[in-house]
Order: sequence, then C-alpha cells, then structure tokens
Amino acid sequence: MRSLQEHPMMSCPFPLSIRTQNMRGSAIREMLKQLDVPGMISFAGGNPAPESFPTQLFAGLQQRVFERYGHKALQYSATEGFAPLREAIAERLRAQGIPADANRILITNGSQGALDALSKVLLDVDTPLGVESPTYLGALQSFSPYQPNFITLETDDEGATPQSLRALFSEHPHGIAYLMPTFQNPSGRMAGLTRRCELAQVIEEYPCLVIEDEPYHSLRYESDEQIALASLCPDRVVYMGTLSKVFAPGLRLGFCLAPEWLFPWLVKAKQGTDLHTSTLSQAMAAEYIQGGFLDEQLPKTIAIYRSRRNAMLDALSQFLPMDFQFTRPHGGMFIWVEGPKSFDAEACLQKALLAKVAFVVGSAFYPNHPSQLNAQMGRNCFRLNFTMPTESQIFEGIRKLTQVLGICADSQ
Amino acid sequence: MRSLQEHPMMSCPFPLSIRTQNMRGSAIREMLKQLDVPGMISFAGGNPAPESFPTQLFAGLQQRVFERYGHKALQYSATEGFAPLREAIAERLRAQGIPADANRILITNGSQGALDALSKVLLDVDTPLGVESPTYLGALQSFSPYQPNFITLETDDEGATPQSLRALFSEHPHGIAYLMPTFQNPSGRMAGLTRRCELAQVIEEYPCLVIEDEPYHSLRYESDEQIALASLCPDRVVYMGTLSKVFAPGLRLGFCLAPEWLFPWLVKAKQGTDLHTSTLSQAMAAEYIQGGFLDEQLPKTIAIYRSRRNAMLDALSQFLPMDFQFTRPHGGMFIWVEGPKSFDAEACLQKALLAKVAFVVGSAFYPNHPSQLNAQMGRNCFRLNFTMPTESQIFEGIRKLTQVLGICADSQ
Repeated sequence: MRSLQEHPMMSCPFPLSIRTQNMRGSAIREMLKQLDVPGMISFAGGNPAPESFPTQLFAGLQQRVFERYGHKALQYSATEGFAPLREAIAERLRAQGIPADANRILITNGSQGALDALSKVLLDVDTPLGVESPTYLGALQSFSPYQPNFITLETDDEGATPQSLRALFSEHPHGIAYLMPTFQNPSGRMAGLTRRCELAQVIEEYPCLVIEDEPYHSLRYESDEQIALASLCPDRVVYMGTLSKVFAPGLRLGFCLAPEWLFPWLVKAKQGTDLHTSTLSQAMAAEYIQGGFLDEQLPKTIAIYRSRRNAMLDALSQFLPMDFQFTRPHGGMFIWVEGPKSFDAEACLQKALLAKVAFVVGSAFYPNHPSQLNAQMGRNCFRLNFTMPTESQIFEGIRKLTQVLGICADSQ
Repeated sequence: MRSLQEHPMMSCPFPLSIRTQNMRGSAIREMLKQLDVPGMISFAGGNPAPESFPTQLFAGLQQRVFERYGHKALQYSATEGFAPLREAIAERLRAQGIPADANRILITNGSQGALDALSKVLLDVDTPLGVESPTYLGALQSFSPYQPNFITLETDDEGATPQSLRALFSEHPHGIAYLMPTFQNPSGRMAGLTRRCELAQVIEEYPCLVIEDEPYHSLRYESDEQIALASLCPDRVVYMGTLSKVFAPGLRLGFCLAPEWLFPWLVKAKQGTDLHTSTLSQAMAAEYIQGGFLDEQLPKTIAIYRSRRNAMLDALSQFLPMDFQFTRPHGGMFIWVEGPKSFDAEACLQKALLAKVAFVVGSAFYPNHPSQLNAQMGRNCFRLNFTMPTESQIFEGIRKLTQVLGICADSQ
C-alpha cells in the first residue's frame, strides 16, 4: 500500500501515510507569512482586533488563578477540561437555551482541536460528510486527512437548504453534516428561525449527526439571537464554540458539547492527541468569565466590529463594480464577494498583493475532491475580513482593491 | 465498512470510525480520578513534584512577555511555533551535541502533540512500527488509533537491543522504531555509549526512521550525559522533547526536531489538529529559558528527585520480597518492578488501592494487538513513580505495598 512512487511528493525519501495526500496546507496561513510588509492592508486573516484583547487584565487573572488553585494550575489535569471552565461554559450555553451539562463539555485546543477529535472518532475513508458550499477552510483541513466522502450541500442566503440536507440523509441515513448556521465563515450568512426549524425537522427524521460550529455566536451586530440546532435536536447535534473570538485566540481555547454516547470517545481521542488543554489557560479563562470580565468586554468588541463592518459595506457599495455582489452579514468577521463568472480571484490576488491588499480566494473554501476539481468552485469569489483592519485601512484597502479588480476586468 | 454491529460498543447509537476500536483509554488517567482520597499514596502518575514548579516566577514571566511582545502574545501565531522559543530550544539541543536548527523545530501541545503529528504523517494501517518492550503508554495511545503493525523490540538492561532493531529493519527497511534510550518510561533503563553506537550503526544501514523520545534527558541523578541518536544519525531520527518535566506540565509544551524532508508535513498535520500551540505559554517558556531561570531551577529539582529515588530504592531493598526485582534508574521518574511469573499485578492493584497505595500495572505498557492478548505481557510487573510522593510517603507507601504483595503471594 505505501510506496514512494505513489506519493505526489517524489522528493520525499521515506514513504508517508496515504493520509498526507489529503493534507491541505492553509491558504491563509501560508499567505499570512507574506503579509508582514510595511503598508500591507490585510483582509485575509480571521484575526480578532488586538483592541478586543483584555491585555491589561491578564496580570490580575493569573494572580487570581494562583491564589485560588496554587500549583494545581501548573500541573497535569483532566483530559475533559478544567472543571470551573466547563461549568462556566455550560452556564453560558444554558442561558442561550442549549440544554448543556458541564459533564458533556470537552475543552479543546481551539475549536480546531474539537474538529480533530470529532474527525478521529467519526470519519473513516469515504464516510459521507456534508459541508456547506462554501465552508470553513479550517474544518476542511481537519477533515481531509481522514479522507471522508465530502458532499457539498447547496446553500442560499440562509446557508444550507433543508432540501440539500434531506438529500444527504436520505441517501446516507448515518451521514454527518458540518454546519455553521450563524454568521458563517466565509459567507457571513445566517439562518433565520424558520430555516432552523426546517433543518431541525430534517435532522430529527434520520439517525444522522450534525456538527454545529458557532465561533461567532456572540459577535452579533444586528438582528435577534437565533436558537441553536443543539437546542432543537440535542441528541443529534454536537455544538462547537471557541473563546478565540471573545477572549484571546493565542490561548487556543475551544470546546464542544457532545451527546452522552459520543462524549467518552472524544475524550479518548483527545487523550492520544494532547492529553489535555493548558491548565493555566483554562483557569484564566474561567476567571475571565466568572469574574464578569467577558460580559464587560463583549459590548466594546461588538461596537468596534460593527463600525468596521459598516465601513466595509459602505466602501464596497461605493467602489465595487456593478457586476460584483457581496453579502451583508449581521455578525461575525467576514464578507463574501462574488464576481462575474469570468472573474478569476486567484489571478487577481497576485495583482492585489503587489498593490498591498490581501484577501483569501474563494476556492480555498471548497473541498477539493477529484469530481470537483474541474468545476473550480469559488473561482470567481473571495473572502474579506473586517475585524482586524481599522476603518481608514478598510476604506483605503477597498479603494485599492477595486482598482485592481478594474484592471483584472480590463485584461480579460 | 462502517456498521453498528461491527463495533464493540453495542450501545452506541451511531457508527463510529474503525479507528475507535483501537483507541485505548489511559489506565493511568482513569485511575488518577480514583486517587483523590485522603491518605492515598500514589506511585501511579508521572507528575513532576509541585516543588519543582517555578510558581513564584510566573507573574514576572507574564509581565516580561507583555512588555516585550504586547498583544502579539495573545494573537494567533505560526503553526511551527513561537520563534524565540524555537531558537532557545535549538540552542539547548546544540549544547547537547545535536545538530539542531530552529527552522526544523516544531512546538507541540506536549510531546503527545508531537506523537500525534508523527502518527498522522507516518502511519497507515499495518505500517511496521517497532516499540520497546515495555514502552511508553502515552505513545501507544497516540499510535494505536492509526492501526500500525506494532512489532515488539526485545530489550535488556540498556533498552532495545541492536539485534532486535536489525531484525525489524531487515524485514521492513522502511520501518519505524519508537525508542526512549534515556531513563525510559516505564523501565528507567538507559542505553550507554556503546549501545547507542551499535543502534546508530543499524539505523544507518537501512532507509528507516527512528523516533527518539527524550522527556527525561535533564533529569539525570548520576552517570554522564549520553549522546543522542539524533546526534549520531540526524537524517534518520526525529528527536522529541518536552518542557513538562522541567517547567510546568500543565502548560502542555513539547517539541520535536525533524529531518528537513519531514518537517513541512508535520506542520501541515498540526495545522489541521490545533492550528498552533498557545502563544502566551510559548512566550513565557522562552522567557523562562532565556532568562536563565531553567538553569537555576534544574539543580534544585534534580536534588529533590535524586533523594526521592534513593528513598524508594532503599525502601524497596528493605521491604520487597526476594523474588521481586527492580530497576535502579540513573534518572527520570520511574522504577520498574518485576514479580515472579505467578504474580498478577492487576489483582494486586485492587488490594493495594484498598490499602491506599497506587501504582500502574505492567500490562499497560505493551501494545495489545491480538497476537499478544494471550501472552499478557507485563502481567507480573508494575511501575512506580518516585518524583511526586515525599520521602516519608515513599517509605510508608512501599512498606504498605509490600504487605499487600505478601498477601497476594499467600493467596496464590
């Protein structure tokens, strides 16, 4: 089975696992390395603004942790997670209407850690896995090495359609779907109440499993809070969240709430992967939430992001050519731009980087399984982040970018 | 391929991956949950002593990090690791005689994270993987889900024998071996210079790969520092280390130094697993090393551990029945005890726990592939940790334990 010849990387002097043929580097993380150039305006990453970090609180948080837990904050701890943090998260989820029990919450190294544990426990070669079109690139990176059978779910302005979900599960009753119903990455789309109820109805009809990924739940700039699929179908939904967007991404704290039958398997998978997540980081996060600091910081972060989103929507309305469309997200971090069929985002990116503006090409947000290689899904699309750049950078960057788009259109 | 019926856990309402059939829970981590009983003396875990933690330095370390790096300490960072920490580790490895380049050092979530990345990149179903007999239980947990073909390497007082390594590689020239030549977990054994040169000679003869795991390198209580296999065969050896035993295990900081052809694949694997390791933890570790604090703390830690090892060796010599043998490690954290053939460590553990003494049964340190299930490798052995209990606990615990051993012998 293993052979040097079979592997696409011929220069490798040792046979790698078949899995590596499906490992994708992150288009974003590779590009980010090039962005450390003076004057570069980046709409590429998914970074929270540094202004949202509670930097000045950290000394106090750490002190409180040592006062309360002493050397236990530095010792090995349970794979499941640090009990006070699990409890604090469960309480917040219950306030959202999700029937959350701290005993079913696993703390992971970012939500990426939850995706990896879920992949390990659920995915064999060719396991049917539905993903939105487009979908979160980091999830594709987690799933791909486990070689599932990616099935693209059709989407509209509210994300995955009930019809596409039904098509998936009627063909594969034990199928799995990965959904991001709230301020989706990359599209910014949100499913409304009716859509959520329709999706839940489909989910209840099949012995399926849905992974509901909600990193942006708290980053809501308008419209009402929506009920989670995990509230509607708690036995069939794994709910994932993260502290990366509301505390500090560098600490790598994510979590998932899993049905009782699945939870012990995720713990076993995580044990083999990293034993547990940093005790000290978890303890500081628990203090941050329990001390009321998160609730104090969140409105400030939302105010910053709302202004930046508005600035980007204004700039796009003002500058973008008429044959380009863009989403108007009510929350989250991203706007999705779709050009005319003839538009080639990849070629445009090279010119944009020369003009010192960066974005992520749309094709990065689709699984690249063989049947879709020719379709070049997302080829005419790209993703813009509005949380990291300042309002003046947004104005300047979008202006520059649209000049590049004009040149790209002329040269076609 | 996937079906509910095939899976050993019949009560699971959803088909799990085939991989889960090979997921082992950790005997240690499961038992640790039972040990929170007043009066329990635990020789079970592999925990560093809290006295070794630089707890009082943490406020200063964090302050230095924020002064030097500001909000970057809280932001997303490179998958490869935080540059100053990679550089600090490379420098220490070079001082050990290992040709280390910071560009080939990957910072991971504990050494468990390195094992997982290596597994993802190297192991297919049935990939030949040699492990010492006994071997590190956490490594088995990482490797097992990827379903390699475990091949047990014969060992003597210096660990894996050159003959067993040659047998592995002559049958499987592209085979992989996982070795812990220095103060091995669980046996405490160390390979001397001649043994290392013999192993290196075998390694150089085949297009193989060796994973050299060195968590206890710095915890040396007697005898000279030994040259690493990574110094002797840098192109064929991945060298793994950790800060868990010399800084703080709760922070989950490990690393590996990989050959140039392997390194980019490990980065891709880690990207999909957790994006990166905590920026703040890495930055604090870099300050700890660069500030000279590690070199200041290490002799103190070694002094504590040496005394505890001596106390345990004394107690074992005094109390242990004549038909039990034990290792006399020159470093690390563990002593391995071998009873007579008729001794059943598992049955003894149940009685020991009632007497409030805990250890880990020997069978946990062998891969449980079908051909070996009947052999019950390690059935008459157990592992004792001497770094966590105090000297008086060690004396008292070994005394109690030998009483239990006496009862177990009588009842046979």
